[in-house]
Amino acid sequence: MASLIEPRTLKGFRDYPPDLQLPREEILDKARRVYRSYGYLPMDTPALEYAEILLGKGGEETDKQLYRFRDHGGRDVALRFDLTVPFARFAAEHIHRFGTPFKRYHIGPVWRGENPQRGRYREFVQCDFDTIGTTSNAADIEVVFVIYDLLRALGLERFHIHVNHRLVLNGLLEELGLADRAVSVLRALDKYGKVGRQGVEQELRTHVGLEATQAQRILDLAEIRGTPAEILERVQLTLGNNAKAAQGLACLRQLYDVTRAAGLPDGVVQFDLAIARGLDYYTGTVYETFLTDLPGIGSVCSGGRYDNLASLYTKQVLPGVGASLGVDRLLAAMQELNLVPASYATAPVLIVFFVPDKLAVYMELATRLRRAGMGAEVYPEAKKLRDQLSYANKRGHRVAIIGGEEELAQGVWQVKDLRGQIQQTVADAEISDAVRRILLG
Amino acid sequence: MASLIEPRTLKGFRDYPPDLQLPREEILDKARRVYRSYGYLPMDTPALEYAEILLGKGGEETDKQLYRFRDHGGRDVALRFDLTVPFARFAAEHIHRFGTPFKRYHIGPVWRGENPQRGRYREFVQCDFDTIGTTSNAADIEVVFVIYDLLRALGLERFHIHVNHRLVLNGLLEELGLADRAVSVLRALDKYGKVGRQGVEQELRTHVGLEATQAQRILDLAEIRGTPAEILERVQLTLGNNAKAAQGLACLRQLYDVTRAAGLPDGVVQFDLAIARGLDYYTGTVYETFLTDLPGIGSVCSGGRYDNLASLYTKQVLPGVGASLGVDRLLAAMQELNLVPASYATAPVLIVFFVPDKLAVYMELATRLRRAGMGAEVYPEAKKLRDQLSYANKRGHRVAIIGGEEELAQGVWQVKDLRGQIQQTVADAEISDAVRRILLG
Repeated sequence: MASLIEPRTLKGFRDYPPDLQLPREEILDKARRVYRSYGYLPMDTPALEYAEILLGKGGEETDKQLYRFRDHGGRDVALRFDLTVPFARFAAEHIHRFGTPFKRYHIGPVWRGENPQRGRYREFVQCDFDTIGTTSNAADIEVVFVIYDLLRALGLERFHIHVNHRLVLNGLLEELGLADRAVSVLRALDKYGKVGRQGVEQELRTHVGLEATQAQRILDLAEIRGTPAEILERVQLTLGNNAKAAQGLACLRQLYDVTRAAGLPDGVVQFDLAIARGLDYYTGTVYETFLTDLPGIGSVCSGGRYDNLASLYTKQVLPGVGASLGVDRLLAAMQELNLVPASYATAPVLIVFFVPDKLAVYMELATRLRRAGMGAEVYPEAKKLRDQLSYANKRGHRVAIIGGEEELAQGVWQVKDLRGQIQQTVADAEISDAVRRILLG
Repeated sequence: MASLIEPRTLKGFRDYPPDLQLPREEILDKARRVYRSYGYLPMDTPALEYAEILLGKGGEETDKQLYRFRDHGGRDVALRFDLTVPFARFAAEHIHRFGTPFKRYHIGPVWRGENPQRGRYREFVQCDFDTIGTTSNAADIEVVFVIYDLLRALGLERFHIHVNHRLVLNGLLEELGLADRAVSVLRALDKYGKVGRQGVEQELRTHVGLEATQAQRILDLAEIRGTPAEILERVQLTLGNNAKAAQGLACLRQLYDVTRAAGLPDGVVQFDLAIARGLDYYTGTVYETFLTDLPGIGSVCSGGRYDNLASLYTKQVLPGVGASLGVDRLLAAMQELNLVPASYATAPVLIVFFVPDKLAVYMELATRLRRAGMGAEVYPEAKKLRDQLSYANKRGHRVAIIGGEEELAQGVWQVKDLRGQIQQTVADAEISDAVRRILLG
């Protein structure tokens, strides 16, 4: 006989067993519902694209991480590394059919051959939403509402949405005569959360070549703290005369006013001028979202506004704004915050298979419960009662229903509440109601 | 400026724009709900596996179709071509943590570099469910219930679940002294639906080398038609003395009795002795599902029982039974049967953005409607009313809400039923009720 093949996953990849996949599906399901409630439309694209579509869109780093190969027809192909580049390609191909504004969400796996770190994998799910075809700040403001609803739908209450506007930073750089070095300055600033003031200052001085006073003014702006109103006022005083900065400030002010007027609780939106988002293509509002109780986990929902999504594939100018929910990071956070239930039974009721030749009776009961909206499974073998109940307890079923010869003859069931370990005898005709009472109780 | 890159998908791949992806998500969502109502647990595995895990599991044909390459670490890797082989690898690795019986569902994309045909793509979604760790016929019977609930949940009413048992066929082959040629006989028989009696007969004679009487007896069995009870009786008469066939017949009889007793409508289950399922690893019950109004589209849900899922990776014997919903085939069928709505708005309400400086009022209204459970989007630009209504009509919104200076001053809204083109004035405090009435009406 042939020797066994070792069952293993590739380095940097992982399985999602039921206890992980169940909460993950819940997150994606809730995200879908929130996106839909705002009118975002679902779409999907293939995992594999022509390499030329993907190359050079995310920078040198991403190119190196591409899973790229020749297919059977000798085509140069690669696995997508994000959902934005495929969206750009998609928009260039299909936008004429749908028109603008076009609001879409896209949930799917992406692949990056980076060195695996704690909590980061080479295959992970992205969960993006975007509005393209409009420069209106209304779309930027909506992103904040969506993020708020997303986290609330997931049961999270303590979080902050950090918002900044690239034009404020660009205005400052213009004032400092550094407009041509914006990309490298913003990349340095983006590391503020990780390396702090000194780290950023050093990079700005040695790598970008700024003078001490220039670096200082950038960091002073980034470090402004206070309520949104206070921050708006302070930046107005220092940069209000710069046209770009003034435009950025106006957008932020409207965002603050509208979200407050529409009922977002005070304190959810925070202006944070240190947020630059390293990606070169953001040009307006940028967003990051932090959990108050787990700040170290990083942003769980990030994004921003860009001038033109699909300039590499079409002459049609498609400005847009959107963000991406960090599903696996959120899953890890929710586990740490005990928001993930330990039980992973998907059907709350286990019907014990007791009398071997009465399978039809058990299956009929299961069918009846499912029709009444309650998930129910029949244990597949007429094993010892103890074994079947141990299965139910291990999986986390809420109710076990037992019917032996005697019960079946009398037309009753033993209904066992597995949490309270309370057992009652219930007439067959009342079974749905009795089970429902336990499930709702 | 650099020239444009042509935006295109690879041959054999396709995008899912909102009008396709929305019904596809509905199918998957309903499948998930049905699977869960039976206690199947979700799981996921990586798209990429070590090539050695995937090679030789689906036969030579599948090996040739593998997307296989070297990753950054020089590892020989490939994209999964189904969800069964990864499940086998997964079970060998993790089953000790979960114990048996283990019921799982798995929804995800798979890749096969086959020649694209009409309606077949190189990337497609599989949607599998299986119970492993038991040989009990109860698990086989449950598969029929699941398939029935799946198709009903999708709004289909006219379909037949064709069931056969490999042991009946094996019993006949044993009687004919052909047990050692079972694989090639069953492969030939599996083409019955496509090539008919003559085609199968020819393959059995020339390729498998059977005598005329042998081929005839196999085809006579395959062509038995009638009610399940009639078929059971006829096979009992001809093969009842063969131990294998008798065992297969007993399983089929129990399946028929239990599904009938538990309330499955007469005629849904049909015994069809011509169904062999080409795959070598099926050893017991096999299933195919046909739509009465679209038989030509082929089986939309197929599967069967196997002796041992993971023998290549573990010495633990894991028998099981399951089936797979053909999501993309079903999607095509539902389009042909007009079961897919033409509208693809995900939020039924469009709030017109009329007065430019009143964005907060519109967004507050949208928030209120969403909290009341009704999806609502605010058009992002204060464009002409005509343009905004044309957007709503194109997307398929059900209701438009309009508030100009005058309405806002009076605290009312114009609520427009876009299907009936009826407009009414509604006080701000009554707006949720008014919209709900239209949506439910």
